[in-house]
Amino acid sequence: MVMLEGSRPVTAPGWTAQPKTDLALIDCDVHQGYKKADDLLPYLPRVYRERVTDQGMLIPSSGYFNNPKRAARTDLVGCDANMATNKDGRNRGTDYEQLREIHLDLWNVDKALLTGSGTYGASVIPDPDYSAALCRAFNDYTFEHWVEKDDRFIVAISVSARDPQRAVEEIKRLGNDERVVAIMLPTGAPMPYGNRFYHPIWEACAEYGLVVGIHPGAEGAGMAGAPTGVGYPTYYIETRMARPQMAMAHAASFIAEGVFEKFPTLKVLVDECDQFWAVGLMWHMDADWKSLREQTPWVKKLPSEYFLEHIRVGSQPMLEPETNEQFWMMLEAMHAEKTLVYCSDWPHWDWDDPATTFPKLPERLHRRVFAENARELFGL
Amino acid sequence: MVMLEGSRPVTAPGWTAQPKTDLALIDCDVHQGYKKADDLLPYLPRVYRERVTDQGMLIPSSGYFNNPKRAARTDLVGCDANMATNKDGRNRGTDYEQLREIHLDLWNVDKALLTGSGTYGASVIPDPDYSAALCRAFNDYTFEHWVEKDDRFIVAISVSARDPQRAVEEIKRLGNDERVVAIMLPTGAPMPYGNRFYHPIWEACAEYGLVVGIHPGAEGAGMAGAPTGVGYPTYYIETRMARPQMAMAHAASFIAEGVFEKFPTLKVLVDECDQFWAVGLMWHMDADWKSLREQTPWVKKLPSEYFLEHIRVGSQPMLEPETNEQFWMMLEAMHAEKTLVYCSDWPHWDWDDPATTFPKLPERLHRRVFAENARELFGL
Repeated sequence: MVMLEGSRPVTAPGWTAQPKTDLALIDCDVHQGYKKADDLLPYLPRVYRERVTDQGMLIPSSGYFNNPKRAARTDLVGCDANMATNKDGRNRGTDYEQLREIHLDLWNVDKALLTGSGTYGASVIPDPDYSAALCRAFNDYTFEHWVEKDDRFIVAISVSARDPQRAVEEIKRLGNDERVVAIMLPTGAPMPYGNRFYHPIWEACAEYGLVVGIHPGAEGAGMAGAPTGVGYPTYYIETRMARPQMAMAHAASFIAEGVFEKFPTLKVLVDECDQFWAVGLMWHMDADWKSLREQTPWVKKLPSEYFLEHIRVGSQPMLEPETNEQFWMMLEAMHAEKTLVYCSDWPHWDWDDPATTFPKLPERLHRRVFAENARELFGL
Repeated sequence: MVMLEGSRPVTAPGWTAQPKTDLALIDCDVHQGYKKADDLLPYLPRVYRERVTDQGMLIPSSGYFNNPKRAARTDLVGCDANMATNKDGRNRGTDYEQLREIHLDLWNVDKALLTGSGTYGASVIPDPDYSAALCRAFNDYTFEHWVEKDDRFIVAISVSARDPQRAVEEIKRLGNDERVVAIMLPTGAPMPYGNRFYHPIWEACAEYGLVVGIHPGAEGAGMAGAPTGVGYPTYYIETRMARPQMAMAHAASFIAEGVFEKFPTLKVLVDECDQFWAVGLMWHMDADWKSLREQTPWVKKLPSEYFLEHIRVGSQPMLEPETNEQFWMMLEAMHAEKTLVYCSDWPHWDWDDPATTFPKLPERLHRRVFAENARELFGL
């Protein structure tokens, strides 16, 4: 791979534009989108094209207001990627040229994982065939309008968990493309992802060497049910607090159901759910497993051993402890040298740039977080 | 208050039987129970007495196996408090004499908060009147069979959240008894507890000076819905991992809904949901509030400020970090000197004794965790 020179030198504390390896910066959460619903029409089968034209895409939503449009990234004002100027108002990150200029080139990004946008809710649509068709259409759109334009892109293809067989078909259709390194599923789901209902998807991921990506989306929408274990909260900020809760539930499920014994090469990436949930979960589940393992004898090791081997955690939004000592302890307790991968969450309002997300990390940890953990995860 | 001399000296590391204040040990989670369903019959109105006799108590349950009976506390074998010898097999902690002998006296407990057992599920029974009647019956049973027997008991009375007006009536009926210091609600709920639906209960608690106790129970049962934000997990260990998730959801809800602005003296005690959730929630919610506070303008301070002033966290099950340094950091990050209160969870299999739960704490922190935080919380 040829290192791209950033369009500006990056001199912020904790970051250096000097490449340390041939892959110095991998961004594991870059949202690509389509500009308006009509954009997907050419990629849909005629039956859905007609219905969508007639009644809209009907992707379920949860009814919580997001941040106001005026609070979106001010450096994106006037661009398609800004909600305020985006006609359908839902999908940001719709302009490749902008992404290239003020993200990939600016920050010297070597590889960017395209994590999708706008179709997460497809997974909780009742009709499994429409659900799968939407994902397929979005993937085809993504290849034509994004992936083909820049060799820095790697892709987490959208699949719907609504019907595992449909998901497997999509994995088989696209999984041999070397740029496809993961699938993407929303946190919102009617059952935690360790459930045996989903195992055919994990089997296909293992076969094709794809990471299971999980990203907030669809919680509280459609068939997903309530986004917390105590029902529907009232405000958006509470749904954000629900993200680590959902991450814990999915991770506990993968471990307790023995998914990593059944598919020993499977890896899971949990983006945008913060980080501390991983620490509490490992500590608590290890202690409980010692007492309760006779109920799940297929869980043969400490839950934390499975976690550290199989689950990776995105850095955005990076938690902000009260003190530096607590920050370093958090990184130590989550084994960041193995588990943490840098994510920008381009182009959303709460994104994290690579220069100021962290204090200056020790060189080895810097390499692990910004590139090597992701390189190993995706087999780059 | 007269200090009771323990029946044996306690010499385990980290603990001392020497009283440090007049209240040296307050246990904030001691489960009292009834021996069999029939025990509550005399306390129920005739209509429910007849129905229960005909069809059973019908307290909703979630269908997850708990730990095997043989794994219950071995020192309770042969006693009523042990599940294996308990006729109806559900309620442990049913024998006052045993509690007195091998817990209160043994550990020199000065005050023990009775947190109930067996009726948590009443809160998720569809019929609000039966739900309230069960709580009332259990409270009357508790006073007659427990509270009157020992002046070390303080009580968290059972109320049902199913109908806030019924809960308010029960608070008015019993709330003037000085031994009543709290109400007790299960974590399992169809809506998070900050929701305005529940505010009449909080208003009554504030009026009577009662703490809002929340303890695992009823999750995934009856009207509570799924116990995680991603549906029903498969195994019991996952439901235990769901406890910190539910604690986060309730705490975020109390804060986001402005409950502590509306009822400035209200305090909440979250038992048996571990501790680390509090740290992640405070860090994440503080950061998000800075961006999102225009959506909840009644939240006037940092979420962590409300948390530290109003929410207390039980010590059982005390998380077991990998290193001592992480343990101390966790206590620091959660502001244990304000938030943490000792809980034994008598008589359950995963209980924590006061001697070995912690490494030796600095004297001031020892006093806060084992007595002073609880004393201030309950106004003792």
